[in-house]
Amino acid sequence: MKEKPIISNAVIRRLPRYRRYLKELKKSTDKVSSKELSELTGYTASQIRQDLNNFGDFGQQGYGYNVDVLFEGINAILGLGKSYNMVMAGGGNLGKAIANHNYYYKTGFIVTAIFDKNPELIGKKIRDIEIYDYLDMKDYIEENGIDIGVICTTKDSAQEVADIFCSAGVRGIWNFAPVDLQIPDNVCIENVHLSDALYSLAYYMNNTKSE
Amino acid sequence: MKEKPIISNAVIRRLPRYRRYLKELKKSTDKVSSKELSELTGYTASQIRQDLNNFGDFGQQGYGYNVDVLFEGINAILGLGKSYNMVMAGGGNLGKAIANHNYYYKTGFIVTAIFDKNPELIGKKIRDIEIYDYLDMKDYIEENGIDIGVICTTKDSAQEVADIFCSAGVRGIWNFAPVDLQIPDNVCIENVHLSDALYSLAYYMNNTKSE
Repeated sequence: MKEKPIISNAVIRRLPRYRRYLKELKKSTDKVSSKELSELTGYTASQIRQDLNNFGDFGQQGYGYNVDVLFEGINAILGLGKSYNMVMAGGGNLGKAIANHNYYYKTGFIVTAIFDKNPELIGKKIRDIEIYDYLDMKDYIEENGIDIGVICTTKDSAQEVADIFCSAGVRGIWNFAPVDLQIPDNVCIENVHLSDALYSLAYYMNNTKSE
Repeated sequence: MKEKPIISNAVIRRLPRYRRYLKELKKSTDKVSSKELSELTGYTASQIRQDLNNFGDFGQQGYGYNVDVLFEGINAILGLGKSYNMVMAGGGNLGKAIANHNYYYKTGFIVTAIFDKNPELIGKKIRDIEIYDYLDMKDYIEENGIDIGVICTTKDSAQEVADIFCSAGVRGIWNFAPVDLQIPDNVCIENVHLSDALYSLAYYMNNTKSE
């Protein structure tokens, strides 16, 4: 079987961004040029063409891209056609916010259970998702074929949670705890380090000419 | 006056990550080599040396980096020595989670007020931060010299909030709404698109060999 080409992380991280703009564009137009996409996204037109060329022949010289085809193409590349079962560790404020954040639900990412150590939270619900005892998390993941574990705990509990996720067989971890975790090679992880963006923002504020 | 060199966004986005590892390293060691930093961060040693060389001469051939000096150096580059006043628009679950997320407080980013349209939230508090009427937000920002506005509203309200932030004089926006906003050139923005990381995760899960 032919090996898939290795696509750089930077390209993969830009795809959800292209997708976001295409989703808006779909409402008003059928086609878009790399130049128009460049104006929207802030990436250069040549960068956009190069990124999309990694995945085949989306564009057509002199026409541009068909918005629907490109949108569905990016969905297929990312693997957004199917549905993913998720559990969340941590039902505190952050867990509540993430579980209530409805954008990813529409794309097929479904949180089926939340786990917490806090007896005051166990038995309660966020949306219609029940909060269970943290001690039952491993069994639940194994029994329900969970694909993705979401970490909304404190920094100090995050590695322990990741270890349970991995040993129970999740294939991906979406980590909101501000720590980089050790996980086996066959599990994928994406970290959302909330403060990192704030620190970069401080840099830009201090290095942008005002007016 | 000599112009500062233009540093690529990718480098600026890696600095908070280096900072995070150095903060941990400070607890156990005085010095670190680019090779050790590479093992921790996953970036190549040459990439790390090249990134840090942008900002002067932190390393020493055959010795590596002094952890404290490098940590403080990165703080200074990012502008983390000073304090920043912030207001937050949106006191719902996401606002609550972000206002309760205490890591950035320690670095000098202080949320002084939260604003919401919901009469049930106005007058309540998150931590010790009062939630005020959204209609008073512009005046508050102008009167209190607010540096950064945080957007924790829905996607539909985000542009309106950004417009108020900008006209009231914030210099930076930390945006959690899943939409890219139009803002003037003299205002900086960092977006945290929560779902983007999840979509990239799906790609990696579908393109990583299991076992």
